[in-house]
Amino acid sequence: MADVTGPVLVTGMGLMGSSLAAALTAAGIPVLVHHHRPEVALRAEARGFGRAITDLTTPAAIAVVCTPVSTIPGIVRTIAQGPTPVITDVGSTKGGLVESLADLAPRFIGSHPMCGSHKQGLEAVDPDLYRGRLTMITPTPASLPDQVSAAEALWRAVGCRVLRVDPIRHDHLVAEASHLPHVMANITAALLSAEAAPVGAGGFRDTTRIAAGSPALWADILTANATAVTDLVSQAESRLIQLRHLLAIGDREALATWLAEGHAGRRRFDDARHH
Amino acid sequence: MADVTGPVLVTGMGLMGSSLAAALTAAGIPVLVHHHRPEVALRAEARGFGRAITDLTTPAAIAVVCTPVSTIPGIVRTIAQGPTPVITDVGSTKGGLVESLADLAPRFIGSHPMCGSHKQGLEAVDPDLYRGRLTMITPTPASLPDQVSAAEALWRAVGCRVLRVDPIRHDHLVAEASHLPHVMANITAALLSAEAAPVGAGGFRDTTRIAAGSPALWADILTANATAVTDLVSQAESRLIQLRHLLAIGDREALATWLAEGHAGRRRFDDARHH
Repeated sequence: MADVTGPVLVTGMGLMGSSLAAALTAAGIPVLVHHHRPEVALRAEARGFGRAITDLTTPAAIAVVCTPVSTIPGIVRTIAQGPTPVITDVGSTKGGLVESLADLAPRFIGSHPMCGSHKQGLEAVDPDLYRGRLTMITPTPASLPDQVSAAEALWRAVGCRVLRVDPIRHDHLVAEASHLPHVMANITAALLSAEAAPVGAGGFRDTTRIAAGSPALWADILTANATAVTDLVSQAESRLIQLRHLLAIGDREALATWLAEGHAGRRRFDDARHH
Repeated sequence: MADVTGPVLVTGMGLMGSSLAAALTAAGIPVLVHHHRPEVALRAEARGFGRAITDLTTPAAIAVVCTPVSTIPGIVRTIAQGPTPVITDVGSTKGGLVESLADLAPRFIGSHPMCGSHKQGLEAVDPDLYRGRLTMITPTPASLPDQVSAAEALWRAVGCRVLRVDPIRHDHLVAEASHLPHVMANITAALLSAEAAPVGAGGFRDTTRIAAGSPALWADILTANATAVTDLVSQAESRLIQLRHLLAIGDREALATWLAEGHAGRRRFDDARHH
């Protein structure tokens, strides 16, 4: 397995970036920390997460863009003006991003670590955020073997398992596993009246936990993955219509069969945890 | 505050019934335990949860029917052939039940403790299941003050807060706080493909936890509350259609506003926990 061969440049000292810088530092890997507001990078440096820089073209072995999804392409292009040979990111969608950076394919490779929190910012830093989590990387036929190895080595250095997936397929998988759950949690919470709020118990609490996420951040995420999200939203609508029909005709047996499909989906998820 | 004034008859030694019998026994209140299979009542007796009986007309101060929703009316009528003056239940819907037992109104009063578990049966017994939880009771204009006090005393004896609610209103509140969350969790889980299963993380896990509930049990619950559930399912459909429209026109600001409504709903829930 390849090792990380030099300093890692991390830009964006939010939760994802600061936690990555802290984890790399803890693993003994030199880190260069950057933020669009230099004082935030200095705060990260003061906390021992790396050396603060203000110039994104500073040479590194690999650069990781940990900024909001919509800003990633511009920042990748700025970094690409310098010599850093491999550039990756932590954005939650990949199809459009990889396509828009196709001309940089031998340097840019998409990454998506499957972790996060409803907490935000440098203050929420967690050096163990990545440990034991899955990171998908999305090489294309234009990617170079060394570049793929460098990205894999980065994520393994902070404790991730790594899975290679086609960028478009990636976007559908995360729509199923992450974006649809967010939409459904959000709708469930939106339909809770003030009078019903004291009635909610553990089921409501868990089902809607992720609805506490930032609306602005999630508007970005869903917009960036509009095609796959729209497909799943349509499928969810169909299932609600089926349910309404089964309730209208009062077919309890068919309703149990319908519910068993969700029960089976939950089992698919649980089974995947044990491998 | 009134006390429980005599033995409590608990029928149905599933999770809810056995945990109630265990909690009452722990509170020093005499309990009569019953199950349609007498050997299950004997097992509850052997574990010290009360004295096993086979005759539902055995006199008690209050009887609590902890059996599946569809069986409650028949069992209440059997108990009402004996002298027990107050009969209640733990079913999760109340409008249809209270209406179907309207002729017994001075003896039957509906109860709904807001607790449970995906675990089932006597083996899952938890004497603390009711502690600190909310129980709604659903008196009608035909209810007697002593009967309402007796039901309240029962639930307070096992550590519940008690809220009086009209039966029809109750059903809409639980549809919002419990049944719609179940539907949405179930649909989210149903739409997870085997390939996406390893990609799910903490958000998917929490959002779909309750989809592990028994399909047969939930078919009963949703059928019993079909009117209120259908109303909320229609509202959820409308929100999905709104979301699809916002994604199609790519209006990120309107999408953030739409998401903020779910964010606010989750805050209503959190705020209700602090009172």
